[in-house]
Amino acid sequence: MVVTLKSNIQERQLNDFIQWLNDQAIEAKIIRGVHTTILGLVGDTAQLDINLIRQVSIVEDVVRVQEPYKKANRKFHPLDTLAPVGPFSIGAGNFHVISGPCSVESEKQIETVAARVKAAGATLLRGGAFKPRTSPYSFQGLRAEGLDLLRHARRRTGMPIVTEIMNTSHIPLFEDVDVIQVGARNMQNFELLKELGHLDKPILLKRGLSNTVEELLMSAEYILAGGNEKVILCERGIRTFETATRNTLDLSAIPLIKRLSHLPVIVDPSHAAGLSWMVEPLSLAAVAAGADGLIIEVHNDPEHALSDGPQSLTPDQFDALMPKVKAMAQFMGRRIEE
Amino acid sequence: MVVTLKSNIQERQLNDFIQWLNDQAIEAKIIRGVHTTILGLVGDTAQLDINLIRQVSIVEDVVRVQEPYKKANRKFHPLDTLAPVGPFSIGAGNFHVISGPCSVESEKQIETVAARVKAAGATLLRGGAFKPRTSPYSFQGLRAEGLDLLRHARRRTGMPIVTEIMNTSHIPLFEDVDVIQVGARNMQNFELLKELGHLDKPILLKRGLSNTVEELLMSAEYILAGGNEKVILCERGIRTFETATRNTLDLSAIPLIKRLSHLPVIVDPSHAAGLSWMVEPLSLAAVAAGADGLIIEVHNDPEHALSDGPQSLTPDQFDALMPKVKAMAQFMGRRIEE
Amino acid sequence: MVVTLKSNIQERQLNDFIQWLNDQAIEAKIIRGVHTTILGLVGDTAQLDINLIRQVSIVEDVVRVQEPYKKANRKFHPLDTLAPVGPFSIGAGNFHVISGPCSVESEKQIETVAARVKAAGATLLRGGAFKPRTSPYSFQGLRAEGLDLLRHARRRTGMPIVTEIMNTSHIPLFEDVDVIQVGARNMQNFELLKELGHLDKPILLKRGLSNTVEELLMSAEYILAGGNEKVILCERGIRTFETATRNTLDLSAIPLIKRLSHLPVIVDPSHAAGLSWMVEPLSLAAVAAGADGLIIEVHNDPEHALSDGPQSLTPDQFDALMPKVKAMAQFMGRRIEE
Amino acid sequence: MVVTLKSNIQERQLNDFIQWLNDQAIEAKIIRGVHTTILGLVGDTAQLDINLIRQVSIVEDVVRVQEPYKKANRKFHPLDTLAPVGPFSIGAGNFHVISGPCSVESEKQIETVAARVKAAGATLLRGGAFKPRTSPYSFQGLRAEGLDLLRHARRRTGMPIVTEIMNTSHIPLFEDVDVIQVGARNMQNFELLKELGHLDKPILLKRGLSNTVEELLMSAEYILAGGNEKVILCERGIRTFETATRNTLDLSAIPLIKRLSHLPVIVDPSHAAGLSWMVEPLSLAAVAAGADGLIIEVHNDPEHALSDGPQSLTPDQFDALMPKVKAMAQFMGRRIEE
Repeated sequence: MVVTLKSNIQERQLNDFIQWLNDQAIEAKIIRGVHTTILGLVGDTAQLDINLIRQVSIVEDVVRVQEPYKKANRKFHPLDTLAPVGPFSIGAGNFHVISGPCSVESEKQIETVAARVKAAGATLLRGGAFKPRTSPYSFQGLRAEGLDLLRHARRRTGMPIVTEIMNTSHIPLFEDVDVIQVGARNMQNFELLKELGHLDKPILLKRGLSNTVEELLMSAEYILAGGNEKVILCERGIRTFETATRNTLDLSAIPLIKRLSHLPVIVDPSHAAGLSWMVEPLSLAAVAAGADGLIIEVHNDPEHALSDGPQSLTPDQFDALMPKVKAMAQFMGRRIEE
Repeated sequence: MVVTLKSNIQERQLNDFIQWLNDQAIEAKIIRGVHTTILGLVGDTAQLDINLIRQVSIVEDVVRVQEPYKKANRKFHPLDTLAPVGPFSIGAGNFHVISGPCSVESEKQIETVAARVKAAGATLLRGGAFKPRTSPYSFQGLRAEGLDLLRHARRRTGMPIVTEIMNTSHIPLFEDVDVIQVGARNMQNFELLKELGHLDKPILLKRGLSNTVEELLMSAEYILAGGNEKVILCERGIRTFETATRNTLDLSAIPLIKRLSHLPVIVDPSHAAGLSWMVEPLSLAAVAAGADGLIIEVHNDPEHALSDGPQSLTPDQFDALMPKVKAMAQFMGRRIEE
Repeated sequence: MVVTLKSNIQERQLNDFIQWLNDQAIEAKIIRGVHTTILGLVGDTAQLDINLIRQVSIVEDVVRVQEPYKKANRKFHPLDTLAPVGPFSIGAGNFHVISGPCSVESEKQIETVAARVKAAGATLLRGGAFKPRTSPYSFQGLRAEGLDLLRHARRRTGMPIVTEIMNTSHIPLFEDVDVIQVGARNMQNFELLKELGHLDKPILLKRGLSNTVEELLMSAEYILAGGNEKVILCERGIRTFETATRNTLDLSAIPLIKRLSHLPVIVDPSHAAGLSWMVEPLSLAAVAAGADGLIIEVHNDPEHALSDGPQSLTPDQFDALMPKVKAMAQFMGRRIEE
Repeated sequence: MVVTLKSNIQERQLNDFIQWLNDQAIEAKIIRGVHTTILGLVGDTAQLDINLIRQVSIVEDVVRVQEPYKKANRKFHPLDTLAPVGPFSIGAGNFHVISGPCSVESEKQIETVAARVKAAGATLLRGGAFKPRTSPYSFQGLRAEGLDLLRHARRRTGMPIVTEIMNTSHIPLFEDVDVIQVGARNMQNFELLKELGHLDKPILLKRGLSNTVEELLMSAEYILAGGNEKVILCERGIRTFETATRNTLDLSAIPLIKRLSHLPVIVDPSHAAGLSWMVEPLSLAAVAAGADGLIIEVHNDPEHALSDGPQSLTPDQFDALMPKVKAMAQFMGRRIEE
């Protein structure tokens, strides 16, 4: 951590500040420049609250030169982390496609879609039971009943299930869900992250619409710090000024996360652009950028889906996409678990 | 709602779509242009799920020409809403300053600050008991104990208290809190909003870092739709590319909200810029833009505050600020309730 | 174009407005909704100034349902455009890599780099002679001398040259440059675009840091409207809140441009992230997303480059990259012109 | 400047780098932390190209702790700069309103508007002769003829004139223009800025739609470095994700610029929101935030203006606004020059 001091400070103030740092086992090395004096802080600065420093009256600015996350940091865990999901493992060279409808709507719907996406090569089944919707007047999901329908589809197909949680009070309902998803809007719902850190279950953590990769890793750190090391990250588009796509898929996040962290990372091309015709090029680009997997929406009847239709593929479109995705994954040297 | 159709569609498809709309009591008027055919939908389109329309195969795009919120909409409630808080009322020409420390830290701290900000003219006391922090290693607030200390300060000063909630499971703890704050990161925590909609208590709803004003009004709609009409909105800065300030205060949101909605709106100049020296100009500008109040952080000992120091004023700085704020409020024709 | 009218307007005002539209050969169809009346405008609305409509006192809002660009629009030019450059053609399934140093620095430097990138498979040589720099104290390029050195390198290697123009007054100097580049900061330098529209020479038009794809196509329209149909678009990253990369590469722009326009589009992975280690994954992802080519910075001595070093590859790194890029281009079914 | 070094570097590499810095009169102080070694650079680092440092192979990252601008920096010029314009001076406590139509359209139009805005209290006359338009099919301004009409209006009213330049080749036409405006899209047209630096004439430099305040000051530095010290800055809204306003007015830029620089700064509330009904609240807020002036669009016939109508006030609306603006300026302790 590097602290820039204000000009014209008194020596006594500086000494007090350095003493206060020393009390916290942090050493401060002084560098006096022409116009500016800076302090280089040495010690376990990741534990320091940067705001604690910023508020000191003689401090002009503070800059971290070290990442604020530890358990998610590749520096301290050089090897890729594998997240086990049922018979599969996500990360470390394995490639998986998670697929299913945006919302679970009926037994027939989820079973039909599950059978089709499994046949096409998807290994995990996704489906929303609790749905975060901008409008209180929109369909909010089948909730507990939706979870039952997912379990039913799992029994039929053998596919592990992935579904989103929105509130800590629902955790008991998710006990036998295989992968719990934290949606973009809850990426900084810290109370939820803390609770999920106490589970022994993979968590699929989606990047918030306007969160940096560092913030995503800090949210992962909440889960890891609680003891749950099975975290899978997901890039799903960020909010920018561009209006032609719903969000802007940030594929540079993939190599960035791979460099900064040991956690697996997948991409959601369906929600990123919000346009079904863009799923194919974005899927291929995501694999080429190094993603460990994809999560793709498929609906058996997109014209009458109750939510998020425009971004969903039909099963036939998914059948056409999967061979291309698999070929790209193989071209990129990934193992396709089946 | 205006629907743009794809080119080269079949008449039968169009008829089916129009029939489906009619079944939902929506009339569709056809306009055939040179290159494009559009449909103007007439009826209660606010209840329609825009995605339901977008996913129809013959649809190119859909645009709302009417706001998707109803209870928050000034068109249907032309008069300003007043939110009653203890002996005060927020909105409709009344002006209030809410003040206090970022975090409640000790009995001595909260009482000292409460006494000082009350003496300077603040009418409501703020203080964080549950703190949303980016890092799991940062101070997370005194939680239930912090709420107790706030109640204690209320007994001493008579000031109604405002404090943030982060999880539905904490609602019982907030039973006698005067104003429950929903922080920026929870603006789209819809499960929380739904529960708060069932309370009979003012909710201070902060705009999310990357949420539009329309989304803020939709989140207010969640609370209003549940039956709780005591919603106070708060602009606190949005995330942009500018890095010199922590966030970019969007003061155009004030006249925009005033035009679109009947709800009161206040401004948080402390969190917006994250710089204590900017609180004064931003406070004055917020009042000039039409804000119904301000929420300003004050700390008795900013150099040793446990969180968010750089943006806090000292009580002396707050003493110096308040006469200017009050003069500006009077200049703008506001009633200063005391 | 769809016009939403204000409520409570007089019939006479509406009739005047419709008459004024008719005078411009635009027909207006009225749709009266429950709360809102809208007009659907039929005719050559691409020629209409949308602001002309917005300012009419009875108008609440106006929305285009048709693209404002014509010559760049795929609807009116379904086939891909090929931009001929020396012995090559860019677009329509051909794949090219443009490479060279950020700035031309010396005869030795440009010739060394040119020889190396040609040997590795690049077909066009890039190099900056006029350099847009944020600071007046930074190196501004060798200017006219830099153009001479590029011509010299072209004679030696036979590679067509690509270099950036910053001002209309420099156009005579660019007479025998093969491809004139318009940089991101000049994407809306309309006076420059107009002049380039009168040349018979390919223009490489880079997307501005905060410009939408529609604005990029409108800037292309300036060149096309002048009579120059040889426009090559380039995605090079947009400005977002993320600070870990210099800009955020928007690869969804590739399929979007391909759908909206017939113009070729290439990607600049070097400037997007500003990080040399990210060039490989972003290059592969760009090709997978459908790009017609790449523009990649290579420097023979990155440690002593006078500008933009951190994003440049060494010739050895470029040698290692090119086989992967070519294999990916072939995998995607592109023809590699050599 | 603080340099963070990569881990596992060789001592010889570090010595070479330090020697290279010393050769440029920069001293490097080494701080060895637990995980990271940093260098504090001492000397005239504002002249150093930060990229030159970043590209060194042993460097992980570089951070400035000092502003990269010198002549625009308040640290080296503590007193406010006054820009003289005809009989007036902008900055240092004086308050001015610049007003006029977006585009000059006819002698009658500009004279009518000039007479009206002068009568209402505006001191400078604005009007666009060269217009930057997104579409090549939109009205591009009367160009040289528009400048003649402005000069004519100046003779009639005595008001100094402010108008936008788009290209260096037009500089001769602007010889007797009182204030030359550089529009948002040309804020980083560095060739233009350099030429304007050689004039002895006030330059009104508008912030780019997606430029930081630091970049605005760097562009001012281009003009100042050329010898022209008469620079007036202008905040006019930045591009964000919010779509309800055309741009987001960033009023925190006003106190920020005042702290970082000695240059005067004014606000353009008309272009920021693009909504005439928002001009009043944003004007008052801008004055309250500390602006040295406003630039406001007024049109005698907004319903038939050829450009930018929706944001223009009528002369009657401007008459109603000016007393409020003046009262606010007086309330804020500004001298109103007349």
